[in-house]
Amino acid sequence: MVSRTFEFELIATDPETKARAGILHTSHGHVETPVFMPVGTQGTVKTLSQEDLQSLGAEIILGNTYHLYLRPGINVIEEAGCLHRFMNWDRAILTDSGGFQVFSLAELNKITDEGMRFQSHIDGSRHQFTPESATRIQHIINADIIMAFDECIAYPATPSEIHDAGERTLRWAERCLKVHREESDGSSSLFGIIQGGTSEDLRKHFAEKTVELGFDGYAVGGLSVGEPKRMLFDMVDVTIPFLPMDRPRYLMGVGFPEDIIRCVAHGIDMFDCVMPTRNARNGTVFTSNGRLVIKNAHEARQFIPIDERCKCIVCKNYTRAYIRHLFNAGETLALRLATIHSLTFYLNMMREIRRAIIEGCFGKWRREFFENYHEDSQYSEPAGKVSTI
Amino acid sequence: MVSRTFEFELIATDPETKARAGILHTSHGHVETPVFMPVGTQGTVKTLSQEDLQSLGAEIILGNTYHLYLRPGINVIEEAGCLHRFMNWDRAILTDSGGFQVFSLAELNKITDEGMRFQSHIDGSRHQFTPESATRIQHIINADIIMAFDECIAYPATPSEIHDAGERTLRWAERCLKVHREESDGSSSLFGIIQGGTSEDLRKHFAEKTVELGFDGYAVGGLSVGEPKRMLFDMVDVTIPFLPMDRPRYLMGVGFPEDIIRCVAHGIDMFDCVMPTRNARNGTVFTSNGRLVIKNAHEARQFIPIDERCKCIVCKNYTRAYIRHLFNAGETLALRLATIHSLTFYLNMMREIRRAIIEGCFGKWRREFFENYHEDSQYSEPAGKVSTI
Repeated sequence: MVSRTFEFELIATDPETKARAGILHTSHGHVETPVFMPVGTQGTVKTLSQEDLQSLGAEIILGNTYHLYLRPGINVIEEAGCLHRFMNWDRAILTDSGGFQVFSLAELNKITDEGMRFQSHIDGSRHQFTPESATRIQHIINADIIMAFDECIAYPATPSEIHDAGERTLRWAERCLKVHREESDGSSSLFGIIQGGTSEDLRKHFAEKTVELGFDGYAVGGLSVGEPKRMLFDMVDVTIPFLPMDRPRYLMGVGFPEDIIRCVAHGIDMFDCVMPTRNARNGTVFTSNGRLVIKNAHEARQFIPIDERCKCIVCKNYTRAYIRHLFNAGETLALRLATIHSLTFYLNMMREIRRAIIEGCFGKWRREFFENYHEDSQYSEPAGKVSTI
Repeated sequence: MVSRTFEFELIATDPETKARAGILHTSHGHVETPVFMPVGTQGTVKTLSQEDLQSLGAEIILGNTYHLYLRPGINVIEEAGCLHRFMNWDRAILTDSGGFQVFSLAELNKITDEGMRFQSHIDGSRHQFTPESATRIQHIINADIIMAFDECIAYPATPSEIHDAGERTLRWAERCLKVHREESDGSSSLFGIIQGGTSEDLRKHFAEKTVELGFDGYAVGGLSVGEPKRMLFDMVDVTIPFLPMDRPRYLMGVGFPEDIIRCVAHGIDMFDCVMPTRNARNGTVFTSNGRLVIKNAHEARQFIPIDERCKCIVCKNYTRAYIRHLFNAGETLALRLATIHSLTFYLNMMREIRRAIIEGCFGKWRREFFENYHEDSQYSEPAGKVSTI
């Protein structure tokens, strides 16, 4: 059975670029696109409560199947009813399939056509994910959007490695679809993932083949794994023309504000990344002028908000000097305040992008954004390995 | 100059016990007593934002002069205007004098009549607190209630050690009063601290002598440092009759819910302790049935609130199973949720105690409380060393 409730509604397209605005209709409310999905790896967006996320206006968050399967364990989530009920989040959830975390975190013992055998990064226990089990686990989690189980490879890779992993991903995609069609209760939609490494030809090939299988949405996967940033944009650019207009497009694991804006212009609708949340916990926040290392000694006497233009509760109520003190003194409130600010920055940026697309002025908005926003060259090239947990 | 704004209003006394209900009027609003003051050592009640504290209904919090002096440094707080502005807390603040932390945390180099020389526990840097400087630092912090600089001694101590430290505390108290009367702008009130170790005679002596000096309020100090709990109650009991009815009475560093209830019955108005907040961060919360180790494996599938009778946001929105998962997975949200719950428990208990005193049924309320509340004998005797940071 396919999703009963999922639908992607295209609202507007930008005349200047390929940018689009839309709405994802899910079993847990609607999600306005383009959207940035905060990463809630272990059933919590680190440092925030679900009340915090609601205050931020988050309409969808991401959960990691690999982590949730290991801890609290899928049986606990099943007993709770679903992940929404377990964590008390009644808006939409997307889960990845677990493949990327096996690739990046676990001790991978063996990949065969059957699936992946791995050892837990927590306790070394042995497990196996198959396309079938990864789909069923996501059904139990009851995410609104679930991802097909795919094989992600490292950068750089040889053409034959890229080809083989992509072909296996395709075979797995069919098996995920079969289980999903037979067993889903209709509350989840299934997205396919397009691999193809940094090969233009293979990206095109796998895009065509994946779309032929017929998913509810399509993700561009296997990027943000260390390739130069130029390649990331190129791969998005060659893939997009093969994707149907009436399905949402999700670029996994991206990224910096400037990258998101560029990829929106390429026609991407959905993003996720640990960037705002992990950087916040490390003492770096995003502002309308660029990145700010809030924990620097320089901030110790700056009795001004993180970002004068920001209307978030942190910028309204707390100074850089206070937040810097909290970081310096090892107080966990520092992590939450920085996270609230940076997620507000990301989510507001997405709302502004969407409004600009609908009003037909995305190009103008983008130029104005970059007049203020200073890209940090240290972080711009290459992309660097950014894991999604 | 004495405090222009501070006043203690006695509202009701319990017919059965010495319990009293009152109101502290401060420069930053009124504080209903008996009151429990959450400990905000470094300008933050650990894991909570000031919005959280307001939601809990906290009317006063405690700051630690020793910590704030070292970090962020008194100049930073002075530049911010005061601690209230630095941390964005517009309700009342009480600061200790720093003496207890020098005693319990710093490397103490020398105590003389002049003051205490010590080395920072953070970086080993050398400093000195005197009665004068401790008072002036607290004026800069601009706490609503500031404490006289005292000498705390360990348990057990010889009669002559207790006597000497108490006499020095008295001499220091006079010097604190002098500086306070000459230099205060009237926004802070100064409390004296009564020492005397576990000696009934010396407690009485120092109570009389301290009260003769004339403070805005009186603290029973030097307890909760390892003495048997029976002794703590005895020392409170012998001290109280020497304290004026029209001044607030503060028992420093106490304690468990059962201890607070007993000391309210002895006539204490104000309490502070790291108990609810530190225990919460270690995975133990307080409930109407007693203490609960929320991080125990037993809670992994308990899809019920921490406390069925509690109306806090945590008990309304999250299950034990979820919070236990957060502890198990090392997520900082666990610390905040446990802290919110346990502080709610403490603050609600104080509000119930106050209402019962006003309604003349404190004895009945106390009996009913202990019908449900299971005291953990493991923690009841002896008191154990509980530092106030």
